[in-house]
Amino acid sequence: MVETLTFLVDPLPVGAAADSFDEAVREVETGAGALAVNDFAPHRGDGVFETLAVIDGHVQEVGPHLARLANSARICELPEPNADQWRAVIAAAAARLPAQGEYALKIALSRGLDPGPKPTAWVYVVPGADFTAARERGIRVITLDRGIDRGAGERAPWLLLGAKTLSYAANMAAIREAKRRSADDALFVTSDGFVLEGPTSSVIVRIGDRFVTPPPAAGILHGTTQRSLFAHLEATGRTGEYRDVTVDELRSADAAWLVSSVRLAAPITALDDVPMPVDEDATRDFNAYLLSPRD
Amino acid sequence: MVETLTFLVDPLPVGAAADSFDEAVREVETGAGALAVNDFAPHRGDGVFETLAVIDGHVQEVGPHLARLANSARICELPEPNADQWRAVIAAAAARLPAQGEYALKIALSRGLDPGPKPTAWVYVVPGADFTAARERGIRVITLDRGIDRGAGERAPWLLLGAKTLSYAANMAAIREAKRRSADDALFVTSDGFVLEGPTSSVIVRIGDRFVTPPPAAGILHGTTQRSLFAHLEATGRTGEYRDVTVDELRSADAAWLVSSVRLAAPITALDDVPMPVDEDATRDFNAYLLSPRD
Repeated sequence: MVETLTFLVDPLPVGAAADSFDEAVREVETGAGALAVNDFAPHRGDGVFETLAVIDGHVQEVGPHLARLANSARICELPEPNADQWRAVIAAAAARLPAQGEYALKIALSRGLDPGPKPTAWVYVVPGADFTAARERGIRVITLDRGIDRGAGERAPWLLLGAKTLSYAANMAAIREAKRRSADDALFVTSDGFVLEGPTSSVIVRIGDRFVTPPPAAGILHGTTQRSLFAHLEATGRTGEYRDVTVDELRSADAAWLVSSVRLAAPITALDDVPMPVDEDATRDFNAYLLSPRD
Repeated sequence: MVETLTFLVDPLPVGAAADSFDEAVREVETGAGALAVNDFAPHRGDGVFETLAVIDGHVQEVGPHLARLANSARICELPEPNADQWRAVIAAAAARLPAQGEYALKIALSRGLDPGPKPTAWVYVVPGADFTAARERGIRVITLDRGIDRGAGERAPWLLLGAKTLSYAANMAAIREAKRRSADDALFVTSDGFVLEGPTSSVIVRIGDRFVTPPPAAGILHGTTQRSLFAHLEATGRTGEYRDVTVDELRSADAAWLVSSVRLAAPITALDDVPMPVDEDATRDFNAYLLSPRD
């Protein structure tokens, strides 16, 4: 039974020959020393990552995750990831997993050793937690002020709000704050009353027959699971829409979900301790879709 | 000639016997694999750190740095650092350095291996860069919007603004943005026009005969070098004052410095490309004091 896997990856430049991919990967024991303390990942949280779901042997949404990794790298001025190499590395890691079960497969690209010049990278695979309760019975969520206003993301690109960086200490603190308040998760909101995203998820809100999510320009990550669900909505005759959502709109919405690659669609059952309506049909439909093989 | 040093530290609980300190430290080759990829430091930027100056064999301000490390750990809900152990580790590392020259000694405490439960820690020592030009001829600085308003630090403690965490990707991006604009460093300001801090420094502003700095409650780190300089000001009959400083006040100030543990006091010669007056006497006095042994 595979429990965890760790691979160190030498990230090759775009265009490197495919026959060099194999020797650029090295499996190491999980938990063993692998990264130098002056690697910019532990040194400064200075790198980017993606977490992909592996469901019954199929890695979900490899293309969208690699596209977002490339976008994060661009925002952080890291070298463009070699998508072919990453596809090969991801496939090799996934081939080591059982044909059944859910896994979280993280890929990370760091700025590398201080003072450089070469990035480092790794893959880390762990069994997914059992998220059945979150998917079926939902989650209690608190709103947390993200400090910024609606315009900060566009105004201040150096804040890296649109990049999925390794600097997640505040995201982790927000989840601890939620647990302290007897909730399951948090939802960041702006200081001027707009909905942003969860610390490790996107939010989708149903208002009447429309499914809406805040635009990425609002200073959030463009969610791969949210995008996948919007494609599913379109394919099934429904509508997904990007637009600003106020916290007041969310409080009076017909349903809302936090969606993410591994937990999938978790309906919000209470927001700041006030019960929210749950759309059980849409929740079942979303999770059935998200559990099916997707590319 | 010592170039770099790396020690892995097993962080002991408060009260651990001093005779266990030695075996809790292990020197490793700098640049070699030391931290697991699922250590929360590279995994999530989830840890805290301090960078101390070692000047001609003397480690500066050990007590204030350990006090701030403890404060950062408290904000991040990490176990209280064992100050006695850290003093011993720092002294042992410093004893390996030449009697002359400047070094940067970083100590870091991570939440440890996911899923826990034990923190990891390390020490990383590198020669200081030559900051003579910054100290004597000054630095060109640009203001950068930090996205938050003046009240965010107090309103949203989960943002960890008062903790020196390993999540420094945006701080590094701000410095890159400054270099892109042909400046040497950045100064974060709030969306509502207040001065905060540099990405790796505090700011001190002279207005008439008063030296002022923004209060830590504004959502910034309490600077160890700024505190040391304020003590020096008091000891020499001058006044240091904590109060909000608007960007407009800074632009018309009589002098300003970015101060930090290793670069020390760097006078700001231009702010957003507009020349600023430089107080050469105070600059010399500040750096002479900061270069002298301090505890």
